[in-house]
Amino acid sequence: MESLHIVKAGGALLDTPRMLEQLLEKFVRIKGFKILVHGGGRRASNLARQMGVAPKLIEGRRVTDRQTLEIVQMVYAGLINKNLVARLQAQNCRALGLSGADVDSIRAVKRPVEAIDYGFVGDVQRVHTGNICKLLSAGFVPVFCALSHDGQGQMLNTNADTIAAELAAGFGAKYAVRLFYCFDKPGVLARETDPESLISHVTKSMYRRMKQEQSIHGGMLPKLANAFYALEHGVKSVHIGPVDMLVSETIGTRITLE
Amino acid sequence: MESLHIVKAGGALLDTPRMLEQLLEKFVRIKGFKILVHGGGRRASNLARQMGVAPKLIEGRRVTDRQTLEIVQMVYAGLINKNLVARLQAQNCRALGLSGADVDSIRAVKRPVEAIDYGFVGDVQRVHTGNICKLLSAGFVPVFCALSHDGQGQMLNTNADTIAAELAAGFGAKYAVRLFYCFDKPGVLARETDPESLISHVTKSMYRRMKQEQSIHGGMLPKLANAFYALEHGVKSVHIGPVDMLVSETIGTRITLE
Repeated sequence: MESLHIVKAGGALLDTPRMLEQLLEKFVRIKGFKILVHGGGRRASNLARQMGVAPKLIEGRRVTDRQTLEIVQMVYAGLINKNLVARLQAQNCRALGLSGADVDSIRAVKRPVEAIDYGFVGDVQRVHTGNICKLLSAGFVPVFCALSHDGQGQMLNTNADTIAAELAAGFGAKYAVRLFYCFDKPGVLARETDPESLISHVTKSMYRRMKQEQSIHGGMLPKLANAFYALEHGVKSVHIGPVDMLVSETIGTRITLE
Repeated sequence: MESLHIVKAGGALLDTPRMLEQLLEKFVRIKGFKILVHGGGRRASNLARQMGVAPKLIEGRRVTDRQTLEIVQMVYAGLINKNLVARLQAQNCRALGLSGADVDSIRAVKRPVEAIDYGFVGDVQRVHTGNICKLLSAGFVPVFCALSHDGQGQMLNTNADTIAAELAAGFGAKYAVRLFYCFDKPGVLARETDPESLISHVTKSMYRRMKQEQSIHGGMLPKLANAFYALEHGVKSVHIGPVDMLVSETIGTRITLE
């Protein structure tokens, strides 16, 4: 079974030149098939402010009205994606920037309006592994931004952690997939603001207990939910932590079902 | 020899919903290999205004400073490119949005500073036909925006007409290439503001004479220069005119060397 590394780069990592450089250097050295997934929420919020558009967040999730969709499309697919692709090319990595609309790779459905109307947010329906495989087999390295489409001409905003998990799950049966959530923290922390409180291993039962005790917060909750979703769909390993994880898997937090 | 249609969409065409819809419908129906190339200067100027970025002009010529590069990257590769790709997918066309950095498809050199420093503007050095062929052969339909890269990590701004001509020229020896410059006018006009003054056929000697007599102006001069460049590099035919050209080649202006 061939290996596929899926690396998601998020948080302040994208905005910190030294960390980003390290990420790209380590990503380039990964052998076998690989995919990079990136967010860019901070840059999008900055542009929104610059354009006089107030960012809207409900429970840590961005509400995507039409203007906000245009902004995230511009920042994710235009600015950040192409800069990453150009930098990877400079290191002889044949990167290919993709949104979920490109080669129909990630199709989603606009989230139904219930208590909250999230606007143009897409819940992933299916990953077109066949088309993505063609790109991997041709020697290209997909760089995904956090956008999907609905198959009817509409782009949609989808969380980058979710994109990474859905890609990993989609390939879980075909490749030996290893999923890495890289960010600017040491991993899952017992006390949010204490970098010394790293939990080096989280199982599903631990996750349930931590959730009950409300000892994990914010973006870590959906990240862990995504990690377990991936593991339940045949993904071999999931790690959350700093860039150095890509060369030494004893760093960061290892996530396992049991 | 397999056929390759290269269609460049420019001018007000991209901003006029009815015209854009017609373009996409006709583009989708083209048989064989095909590539769409688009500009987006008007939308980029709008965003610049909205962000309070004044257009930078030296001796009447536009300069791409760092901020302007970010804006064109966002508008071309993020907003317009992904919207076009999503709309093509809705018509079952397996579109794949590309900048020149993606799969290292179009490498350029930053224009040398002589009398004027144009900033981050790229003069095309080479088209990586091999990598683009892999995408075409896999059944994908490239949608190029007007961006190149320098191979050293830097994105560059390159005129969309030039991108189309360089792609056409690059494939001139390999495929039977037909190049179409689609815009919102009937074709090359004898009198710029008179749509009745269509010239249905322009040869290189006519072009030289018209240039001398200063009877063609503005964007049409470089467009014709690009057309002849393509023809001199093995491209089978070049047409300039409205979208209907794609279904009836008696419409618009036909460009030939002799």
